[in-house]
Amino acid sequence: MDGHLRGDVVRVGGDARQRFHDSRGYGRPAGGNEIDLSRVEAAHLLFRGDLDAIDGMEFEEFFVASTGARERFALRFLVYVDLRGRGFYLSPTRKGWPGARDDDGDLPLSAYDFVVHPRGTGPGEDAVEHRVRVVGERQSVPASELLAENVVLAVVDEESELTYLEATRPTLDGATDYTPPNSLSGVLLEDRVVVWDAPESLYEYGFYGQPLTGRDADIEGAIQLSLVEAASLAADGVLSLDGAEGADAHAAVVDCGRAVEGERFDRRLAVYSTLRERQIVPKTGYKFGADFRTYAEVESVSNLSHSEHLIRVLPSEHVFAPRDLALDVRLAGGVRKRMVFALTGANEGIDWLSVARLTP
Amino acid sequence: MDGHLRGDVVRVGGDARQRFHDSRGYGRPAGGNEIDLSRVEAAHLLFRGDLDAIDGMEFEEFFVASTGARERFALRFLVYVDLRGRGFYLSPTRKGWPGARDDDGDLPLSAYDFVVHPRGTGPGEDAVEHRVRVVGERQSVPASELLAENVVLAVVDEESELTYLEATRPTLDGATDYTPPNSLSGVLLEDRVVVWDAPESLYEYGFYGQPLTGRDADIEGAIQLSLVEAASLAADGVLSLDGAEGADAHAAVVDCGRAVEGERFDRRLAVYSTLRERQIVPKTGYKFGADFRTYAEVESVSNLSHSEHLIRVLPSEHVFAPRDLALDVRLAGGVRKRMVFALTGANEGIDWLSVARLTP
Repeated sequence: MDGHLRGDVVRVGGDARQRFHDSRGYGRPAGGNEIDLSRVEAAHLLFRGDLDAIDGMEFEEFFVASTGARERFALRFLVYVDLRGRGFYLSPTRKGWPGARDDDGDLPLSAYDFVVHPRGTGPGEDAVEHRVRVVGERQSVPASELLAENVVLAVVDEESELTYLEATRPTLDGATDYTPPNSLSGVLLEDRVVVWDAPESLYEYGFYGQPLTGRDADIEGAIQLSLVEAASLAADGVLSLDGAEGADAHAAVVDCGRAVEGERFDRRLAVYSTLRERQIVPKTGYKFGADFRTYAEVESVSNLSHSEHLIRVLPSEHVFAPRDLALDVRLAGGVRKRMVFALTGANEGIDWLSVARLTP
Repeated sequence: MDGHLRGDVVRVGGDARQRFHDSRGYGRPAGGNEIDLSRVEAAHLLFRGDLDAIDGMEFEEFFVASTGARERFALRFLVYVDLRGRGFYLSPTRKGWPGARDDDGDLPLSAYDFVVHPRGTGPGEDAVEHRVRVVGERQSVPASELLAENVVLAVVDEESELTYLEATRPTLDGATDYTPPNSLSGVLLEDRVVVWDAPESLYEYGFYGQPLTGRDADIEGAIQLSLVEAASLAADGVLSLDGAEGADAHAAVVDCGRAVEGERFDRRLAVYSTLRERQIVPKTGYKFGADFRTYAEVESVSNLSHSEHLIRVLPSEHVFAPRDLALDVRLAGGVRKRMVFALTGANEGIDWLSVARLTP
């Protein structure tokens, strides 16, 4: 059976509607028994030997011609083949094709490339399991586009292996019930703060700071605080610093923070304070290469549960390199945590974006 | 017992030599029973209550004064306390002090901060287990300084937790015995190359490329090559491309590589080709956020052993942020691989730098 290019779709007649569309989920009915196939679908049918040629071109020739004609054709073909191999029917996204949304308008291809239908359903039923966007490992992806809707990134690496990454917007809420004591007094030492006579509860129940010499041997309650911890406590009005109180103490810590890490300090502090407000305890994520690891509920440090999230703080205009995403998501998965990006905008709002590996 | 500041050392008399130096590894003999202590050592003895005061200052006051007087004092104190707690004697590095090398000259503090003596030996014996450099997580570390000598980085994170990272220069040699066939013919498709009729051995024994539709279902021997793989094969004179042969084929791939990833492509290609020359097989490290993962000996892909290294390619003038180092090293450790940085200079030489977590 042969197909014919009409503009950018491939028209197939004969028993194509019954044979390819109704029973196997390819293409879109084009009236009568005819269907229209996208180039990717047509290439797959050529590849399998279900079609013989398209305007005289066999698989190799059609594949090369389509790669020249359409951006990311080879990548989209790989993803299409892989998802069909996993038992899904999927529709290329085009205005008016199965699964496309009414508000997609002239759907930009950059938003997503395929609508994946739930296993056991086909394009006729219009149900949607995933919206998949195909990217090469060298293409960058703006964080704002991942926030815009739940999308699955299908990343094709330079050797044509695939990784699926699902972007979602998590809700972060905790249940740590702790109020710091209201008169702590600290001293700024380089880029940290020492509270010489902290009450035991500050560390043990609030999980603020770190005993001066580590967990095993402390000196008369001396606690070191990180700058974000100190700034957050100062903002709550409970920490004085080198004699300064309230807003002055807060300003002193923030000045120090900006001096050592620039405007990044303000973004990290906003995220830290927001998490504390939500009764989540953020601690350093340094050992995991992140800004914070978080504990949803701290009863006491001696009886600490597993931390659930790794948080990386980024400006809202951040553009991800797929390889950096792979690094973060792989590491988080390896330590049984969820990777969350905290995107901080100019208006001090925070958008939370979770990215996790998906096996479709 | 009291001490007295003399310039930047603390002089202690009485039975200090026997009590602190000979039996517990503090300081340097200063004639008679007197010893000189560095500020960090003196602070530790105050902290333990072995000294009462230094020029009238007790621990808190001396600690705060020393933080103002000496760069990274608080960080060095934390590392000193930690390593002593692990059963080591260690000497601050100063010209003429235990473990300092003859060629250290006026030892810059940035090179390393402590000489750690083997367990069971003290400063008098002059033996060296580690040379430790203390850095805060916000301080950057030039790759060239890690290459200069085997050094252990003691990274103090913002919450004062410690991570030890050991930098060494590994030897990379493999035993993969494979010579590619000498007439492959491919076509450039976007940022990859397809060889439509590749011999089975190219993938199965050489581990070049990837079957067009993944490992499970291939189409008549079609193999996709990454651009570095194709460039390396073209440089060997065995791959023609769209009709071009030899140097022309090589130039076509390199042009494409530079178009999609800039001068980074040349650096990655140099590393790829050098590894192949050493009979090591590099494959993409994308899933681990690295440039390559490497196999020392590939007998066949169906009988593949564990890959040993993750390789990140960097320019030789690269400066590490400790947090990025933590991310790479942690991920590599989690998948039982060794993290290796390939530092490529303007002269096309490659310096290999391995960084691994160390538990002293």
